Order: sequence, then structure tokens, then C-alpha cells
Amino acid sequence: MQQNNFDAYIIPTADFHNSEYICEHFKSLAYLSGFTGSAGTLVILQNEAYLWTDGRYHIQAQIELEQTGISLMRHGLPGVPSITEFLDSKLKDNNTLAFDGRVMSTEFVLELKNKIKSKITLVTNVDLINGVWSERPKLPFSIIYRLDSFFSGQSYEEKLQIIRDKMTEYNTDMFILSSLEDQAWLYNLRGNDIPHTPVFLSFTIITLDHTFLFVDQNKINLVIEKYLNDKEITIRPYSDIYDFLELQKIRNILVDFKNINYQIFSSIYKNNKLVNKQNPTILLKAIKNETEIKNTKLAHIKDGVAFTRFMRHVKTSFQNKEEISELSLSEYLKELREKTEGYVDISFNTICAWKEHGAMMHYSANNETNSQIKGPGFLLVDSGGHYLEGTTDITRTLALGKMTEEMKLHFTTVLKSVIALSNAIFLKGCKGINLDILAREPIWKLLIDYKCGTGHGVGYLLSVHEPPNGFRWQIVPERNDSSVLLPGMITTNEPGIYLENKYGIRIENELLCVYKAENEFGEFLGFETITYAPIDLDAINPRLLTPQEKNWINEYHKMVYNTLSEYLDMDEKEWLLKTTREI
Amino acid sequence: MQQNNFDAYIIPTADFHNSEYICEHFKSLAYLSGFTGSAGTLVILQNEAYLWTDGRYHIQAQIELEQTGISLMRHGLPGVPSITEFLDSKLKDNNTLAFDGRVMSTEFVLELKNKIKSKITLVTNVDLINGVWSERPKLPFSIIYRLDSFFSGQSYEEKLQIIRDKMTEYNTDMFILSSLEDQAWLYNLRGNDIPHTPVFLSFTIITLDHTFLFVDQNKINLVIEKYLNDKEITIRPYSDIYDFLELQKIRNILVDFKNINYQIFSSIYKNNKLVNKQNPTILLKAIKNETEIKNTKLAHIKDGVAFTRFMRHVKTSFQNKEEISELSLSEYLKELREKTEGYVDISFNTICAWKEHGAMMHYSANNETNSQIKGPGFLLVDSGGHYLEGTTDITRTLALGKMTEEMKLHFTTVLKSVIALSNAIFLKGCKGINLDILAREPIWKLLIDYKCGTGHGVGYLLSVHEPPNGFRWQIVPERNDSSVLLPGMITTNEPGIYLENKYGIRIENELLCVYKAENEFGEFLGFETITYAPIDLDAINPRLLTPQEKNWINEYHKMVYNTLSEYLDMDEKEWLLKTTREI
Repeated sequence: MQQNNFDAYIIPTADFHNSEYICEHFKSLAYLSGFTGSAGTLVILQNEAYLWTDGRYHIQAQIELEQTGISLMRHGLPGVPSITEFLDSKLKDNNTLAFDGRVMSTEFVLELKNKIKSKITLVTNVDLINGVWSERPKLPFSIIYRLDSFFSGQSYEEKLQIIRDKMTEYNTDMFILSSLEDQAWLYNLRGNDIPHTPVFLSFTIITLDHTFLFVDQNKINLVIEKYLNDKEITIRPYSDIYDFLELQKIRNILVDFKNINYQIFSSIYKNNKLVNKQNPTILLKAIKNETEIKNTKLAHIKDGVAFTRFMRHVKTSFQNKEEISELSLSEYLKELREKTEGYVDISFNTICAWKEHGAMMHYSANNETNSQIKGPGFLLVDSGGHYLEGTTDITRTLALGKMTEEMKLHFTTVLKSVIALSNAIFLKGCKGINLDILAREPIWKLLIDYKCGTGHGVGYLLSVHEPPNGFRWQIVPERNDSSVLLPGMITTNEPGIYLENKYGIRIENELLCVYKAENEFGEFLGFETITYAPIDLDAINPRLLTPQEKNWINEYHKMVYNTLSEYLDMDEKEWLLKTTREI
Repeated sequence: MQQNNFDAYIIPTADFHNSEYICEHFKSLAYLSGFTGSAGTLVILQNEAYLWTDGRYHIQAQIELEQTGISLMRHGLPGVPSITEFLDSKLKDNNTLAFDGRVMSTEFVLELKNKIKSKITLVTNVDLINGVWSERPKLPFSIIYRLDSFFSGQSYEEKLQIIRDKMTEYNTDMFILSSLEDQAWLYNLRGNDIPHTPVFLSFTIITLDHTFLFVDQNKINLVIEKYLNDKEITIRPYSDIYDFLELQKIRNILVDFKNINYQIFSSIYKNNKLVNKQNPTILLKAIKNETEIKNTKLAHIKDGVAFTRFMRHVKTSFQNKEEISELSLSEYLKELREKTEGYVDISFNTICAWKEHGAMMHYSANNETNSQIKGPGFLLVDSGGHYLEGTTDITRTLALGKMTEEMKLHFTTVLKSVIALSNAIFLKGCKGINLDILAREPIWKLLIDYKCGTGHGVGYLLSVHEPPNGFRWQIVPERNDSSVLLPGMITTNEPGIYLENKYGIRIENELLCVYKAENEFGEFLGFETITYAPIDLDAINPRLLTPQEKNWINEYHKMVYNTLSEYLDMDEKEWLLKTTREI
């Protein structure tokens, strides 16, 4: 920075595609700071450094940043400035602010340029990381594979036609698609470039009569090459996108400033008219088609079988005082999923968090933190799988040993929250911001809050966090999870109670949005729960439940038993029957 | 229009101040169309006319517009174009669109200019009404009076200082205040220019060292003149505002485009820099001070006594088969309020709606529609009073005669909705859009919706509908009722069930937002119900209530009895005790 006369340098947790999860090559923030959360931004000044991260990672970041000299900026808490506000106040006129435009979203940079002092110089194309990180991992390499129409339910051609119709509607003749999940969805292709996110690094440019795919050609085998050729898709090298775009003139280009990096924007904005709209692919992808819905339910059954076996293992091992730990259990759960037909990967690093570790919402055990499971406590297990039939995300909190009245109160309250949202009936037009309080209110009544959204969209053999649907009481624009809820969308329902240094409780089901009725008042929608796994009755105080809530848990458990039992052996069945007993 | 070559002319329900309620002089829309609702916009074309109104008035407008040839545009329903969209599609290049800029909000006109074809000519300063409406009422005349600090709780000087601080914060040196309630609040003055809204027609201009009040000087008696002189407020004639503004140059003017008319905007925009922000007075006025809160509770006690007497009268008269009608009961209720010490006015035209009339949310009985109250049914009574101690708004639906199971189900469900919102505990930062579903969900579960917000802010001896707080699940920008909820704000809680041609049920209490607790999770707020009047137990099916809900209604009724009984005679007390019995 001194050599270049940079007064500030920004390093986000991001790749060239604004992906939520990133591959090793892009983990420069973790390399420099030690912070391993999935969302953060490091701002380095000449003599100071600051790291912004959101509520999910406040506790974890505090621990990981200890003794690094990096100050933690708890994004979302009152009084904490945004990165833009901070830079505007720290930097003086004629200072220089630099970053690598390829890892910065266009929206963020335009906002930054708009808000900070106009006399600050911006250098937008410098990657300082390569010079610092000597053993930096290479860009990932994984073979791309095809998702059969039996799994995808809609052909590339059908999807492309809808996109082109949208392009025409917006009076555009070119569309730059940079988000990896959207491209995988469009082509019905999957890869393995990002851990636990089955995508491949690529860019796509669609005109009204042609499609260009920018991708490392080593990833494309003969089968995929033929598939692409048959569809008249032109393959170009991954890094050619910028030069290709420099040549475009007088185009009307559809772009999503949230999803294209600033280097792309810089390559096109002078010679073309830009129409900045949300990628039409985002909504199309979020509304699962009938095949995807049918398959996803199947994936949840498979996942539920694995989780049921896991839960039985944990409860029995604990009872028998066998040695179990966070890491050994994570491994055991992974093995159960791996044995399942159609298994592709786990959908994210399993969170298996004992006692106070559960209060860190996105804790991941390692050899240093690994806890032995002993004595009474809550074990919070948040995990999921990718199957050819779809992606799952499930959390159960297991009661091990004697529960105090307070633990039961908190667990039962989280269950009440889950039930309230599951039972929602609402007019079409509602967003997560309308419904979130249904889940939050029972917990707020205890004067407790969980500092995160109540739920997120889930992809189909794609990202486990998928826009644009979600449940959240305050809109966070960069998350893009506050769309109108529509039939076919799948969203998690995962309220929780997190008490620092004590325990964490989370129950997470996935909800499929479904049509309920239409009458003179409008169209009513509701949810179908598609996660099938027992909720630990050992932590429930039935006296705190209303008759309706008791009925919900009993009906849910009956469905879990009826759905899973045919895949279980006699002992497992017996255990499940007892575990899903009526209360 | 033909003489002037106008292809379209717009007539809103508005005065020069964008007031919600307007005096007779401005009721040109009602004069021309027959529609008497408080919100509507008439668009006249050469051979057609269209009237937009929102969900509150769809049924009423349909009836009132019959055989007028005016087409009803049901604003808010799917597929109904906005006025702007409609004009853009109807008008051709070189057509002329005209209106009187003094009755159009700046925001609306700027939006209109932005959205319609650029080749449409706008004529913004023509009042066609005077030429058509021969007996048009004059501008109103009422004496202005002062609200003692015993009632207002804060002096003009204190309020002015906060406003000037805001002006400085926004880098402005002039503030144009046009909304009538805000001026009445600022000066601690009241008038009677608009029926049931104790304001006076005026404009105010505040600079960093001076205040100008533009008002008809006939309204100012010697006492008020002295009061204004003491405060060095310069009085100018009402209509001088435009000429005064034409002379302003190189000012930085704070204005609220929602609240200044287009003629004001036209007078200033060329020579000055405009800073368009919500009037700071709106939020200041909405957060009631301690004096206002204490007084408002007193007003609700007075109002509750009147309503209790009214309810007893209705129930007994019905039982004794005496002749009662919507009009006779409205009159009776008004007389009860008039007898109360500190009474100023009713706060809006009483809605006393029998059976199917109750389904029209803002029905007002007249000699033609007046129903005799006979046979079993619901009587919906929505009314309120202005007192020196504040403004009230209360709805009770009275069960007269035998209730069917369905009627009880609907009434009990509306009560459940009221309770759910009353009991809300929420983090500071929540808006009405977050909380609305608490009230709506029990009714949505019956696949029924009420096509309006759940509640609105209430002024202090000011407008009964006061921004910026409210409960509504979809933001309607022009209503400005979706602010963050803060302690001191008063909002109505009035869910309902409206079945066309059958009946309407509404229960309306007012909620004072209060501080609850602060801890590591944030600051929690809640509500205190400040309306004191029985909720008719004769329409409740207790089996549909949870123990907590039963407890709420019993506690509420106990409070009503304890609060009101000291003001009642023995017979009334006995009746109230029975009416607020435990269930």
C-alpha cells in the first residue's frame, strides 16, 4: 500500500461473481485476518484495520480477531457506521482508496463513489493479494456435469426463451449473467468449484440470438461439449469476458448491479446503455417447478432418514455414556448422508455445537474447539445435503441429559415460533418482512431476540442460501431476500434462542409456499413443511403449548413417522415411534 | 374544458394544504360526482369521467356513482391502473392536461410529469370549478383559540427551536410549513375551519430568525394577536404566500413535497435550492409528550363514560323494543359527548351502521339510508370526540338479539386480532408493516381480509388520522403511515370483518406505544390500551379463546370497570359490572 500510495484498501469475502460462499483462491480475507465467517469486509488503513461482519458472526469474529489488532465492526448494531460512512469519515481529500474491482459488486462501488468525498482518488483494478499471499491456491478445477430433465424439470431452451422474453420486455438486446447459481440453473449443469455449492466459475452473455459461455475449457468433457454444441452455445475462456465486453458498443444491456463485479461494469458502461434490473433468472429459479418440488420432497425424505439415524445414535450414545464429540458426530452424520443414493455433497459445513458453542450461530468445530459431549446440555446440529433430487437444510437441537425448566421454556418457545410461521395463512403479496414477526413474537415476549433472519430461500442442488425469498423483519438490501412469497418457493423456518456462554437452540424446517384458496378477498397462500425429522420432545414443556400447538407437533410427528418408517429397520422404527409419540 | 382545449382535467378531494378532511369550499369532487368519501380523485376527459378511491370506499362509491356515468376505479385492486398510468395511456401527444395546482400535491404532480408522455401539455393553474359551481361555499371562517400549556405540554418557543435545529441540520435557512395540523401544533393554536378537525387555514414560513404566519386576519382576535406579537410572529394575509415566495432567491428551502401544493413549488423552484424532506413537525407532533399522554388518557376516560352510557342505552332500548335508528343513535351519542366537560367537537362523523351498512367501512347514515334497528344483528358504531385533553377514536360492534354461531365466530376472531396486536412485544425499529399481521392473521386464517390498514395515528385535539405511524401490511407511500413505532405514539388497533350485504364487525382501541425493557438484545417496546369501554360479551364464543386471550379480555374489562365506575351512577355501575363480567 505504501509503495502504491494507497491510504485504504478494501478486501471483501467475495469472488468475481459476488458468490456467498467462495473457493480457497478467494479467501484472502481469512488469510489476512484469521476470520473464517462467510460474510465480512476488511478495510486496511496505513496503521489500522477494521472488519465488518453481521450478527451471525459477531461472537465468532470477536474470538478469531483476538490479538490480530483488527477492530471488529458489528454491522447491524446501533451506532456502527457502514463501510462507506466509515471511509468517508476516515479518508481526507486527495487520499487514495484502492481495491480489486473484480471482487467488488458494482452496486457497492457506485454507492461508495456516490457517498464518499469526491476528492478521494479511487484505484479500482489492483489485486494486492497475489503479492502478499505466496502460497495462494489456484482457481478451482472441477468437471462440469449435467442434470437430467428428470431432475431439472425444465430444459435450457425453455428457460432461455423466458429470459429472452424478459430482455425484450426491458428493451435490451444483451444480458450479462454473472451469478454462478443462475448459470448452473440455466444450463442444467452443475460443477464443484466452490465447496458445498455445486457450481462452476463462469460468465454468460445472452443476446437475442446467441449464448456465450466463458469458462475454463478444461472443465468441459466431451459429453458436455456435445451438449453445449447441440444447443449452439459458444464456449470462450473464462477470463476473456472483460475483453469481449470492451468490444460491445451501442448495446442495450440488461445487468444486475448487485451481481456483476465492478470490472465488468467498467468494461461496458461507456459505450452502451445499461438497464439495471434484478436478474430475471433469480425469480425463475426460486419458483421451483413440479419436478423440482417432487424431487425436493424425496431429498428431504432421504435426509430425514439419515438425520433420524443420527439422532438415535446421539441419544443412545449419550445414554450409554459412550465417547462422542462435536467432530466425531459431524463425521458420523456426514457418513450417513454419503451412504444415501443420489447423494452429491453436504450442503454446507455441519454445525455440531455443544452447549455454549451453540450460541455462535455459525460455529464450526475444529480440533482446537472440539467439545466432548458430556453432562446435560443442548447439542445444536445444523446440517444439510445436496442430492440429485435437491438440497436440504435442517437444524435440530437435541436435549441430552436433564433439562432445567428454563431450558424447556426456551426450547418450547422456539417450537412455538416454528409452529406460528408454519401455520401462517396470508394474502398473495406478502413478503418475509410481513411474516417474520409470527416466528419472532413468542421469543420477543421473553425479551430475547435472535440477531438474524428467520429463514432463507434454498436452491435445487444449488446454493443452500438462495435469493430472493426469506423471512426477515428489517430489509437488508444486499441480501435480496425480501421478495413477495409465491407458490413454489422454498424457505427455511429457523427461529432460535442464543444465550452467550450458555447454549443455543434452533429448530429449522423448510417450508414450501403453497396455494390455499381464492375468493372475493384475494388469493390466500400458506406453507407445507417438507422437512421430516423428529423434534426432541425431551426438551418440551407441554404445559406451555396451546391445544392447537400440541396438535401441530403431534400431526407433524405422525407425518414424520409415516413418511420415514418404510426406510428404517425394525429397531430404528421402534425408536422413531417412541421419539414421535403423541404429547 | 372545450373552450380551453383541455383534454383532461383532474379534481382531487383536496384543499390547498393536502388535508385529509376538507371544508365545504373544496368539496368540488362531491359536488360534481356525488361521491362523498374522504379520499378520491376524479379525472374528466372529453366524453368520459373516472373516479379513483381506495378500499375503504369501494362499496360506497359504487352506490353513489350509480347512473352518474362516472366509472369507478377501485384503487388497490389488481389490474386497476394508477391515475398516472391511466392518463399516460389515454392521452395522446399534444393533448392538454389541466388542473388547479393549489389543490395538487407537489409530489403527485412531479410523479405525473415524470411518467406521462413528454409531449402532453400541462396547464397547472386553472380552477374550472368556480365557473361551474355557482353556489360554491366561501372559504371557512372560524375564530382561532389558544391551547394552554396545561394541555399542550410544550411551548411554541421550544417547538420552534427543535425545528430550527432540524433546518440547520439539513443546511436550510427557510422552511415552508403548509400542513394545517403541524401549524396548529407548532403555535399551540386551534381553529374550526374544517369540520371535526380543529385547525385553521394558514401557511407558515420559518427562517432562522423569523416566523411568518399567512392567515385570514379576521380569524385573529385581540388575545391571539397579542399572543402572536409577543412571540414576534408576523401575520400576513392568507393568499399572500405565493407572491411572498416569488420574491425569495438563493435560499436553501426545506419543504415536504408531500405537503406543499404544486403552486407553492412553482413559486420557488427556479430561484432556490430545495431540500425535500418529511416535515420535521410530523414526527415531533406524533410523539406525544407526558402532558399530552396524561391528558389523552383523561379524554379516553371521558369518552368511555359517554360510550358506556350510549351502549347501555342501545342495549336496553333494543331489549325494550323501543324505536331506535342509526340517525337517532348517532344523535344520542353526540349529545352524550357534548355534555362532557372539555368537549370541543366530535372527531369525525359518527358511523352508526346496522347490519349490511356495517360492511361499508365508512358508512354515514342520512335520511335516505337511515335504518331502524330491529331484529337480530350487529350495530357497528365508530365514533370519537375532540376534548381539550385530546382526541379519541373508538369502535364497538354491539350484538343486538340472537347471534348465530357464524356471527360469534367472526366477532370472536376480530377480538382475537385486537388482543394479538395489543399484546405485541417488539424490538425498537419495528414498523407497522412488521406488526400488522399479528392482527390480520386470525382473520386471514378464516380466509377473510379487511381491505384497509389495521390502524392509524391519532392527533392531540387535531386530526383523528395522523401520520407517520400506523399498521398496514403493504406500504402506501401517499399515506405516510409506516414510520418506526416509538414510545409516545398513539395508534388505533381496529381489525374487522366485513361481509358485503351482510354485516360489518370492527373493534377499535387506541394503543399507546410504551417502553418495556432494554437488555443485550436491544430495546423492547409494547403497547398500553388507552380506550376504556366494554367489548360486547354477547357476541363472544369463549370456547374459541385461549386461556391467555380470556385473561386479556377479563383484565381489560376489570380495568374498564375500575376506571369508569366512579363517574357513573348506581344503575349505570350495576349495568357496567354485568357487562364487564368475567368469562
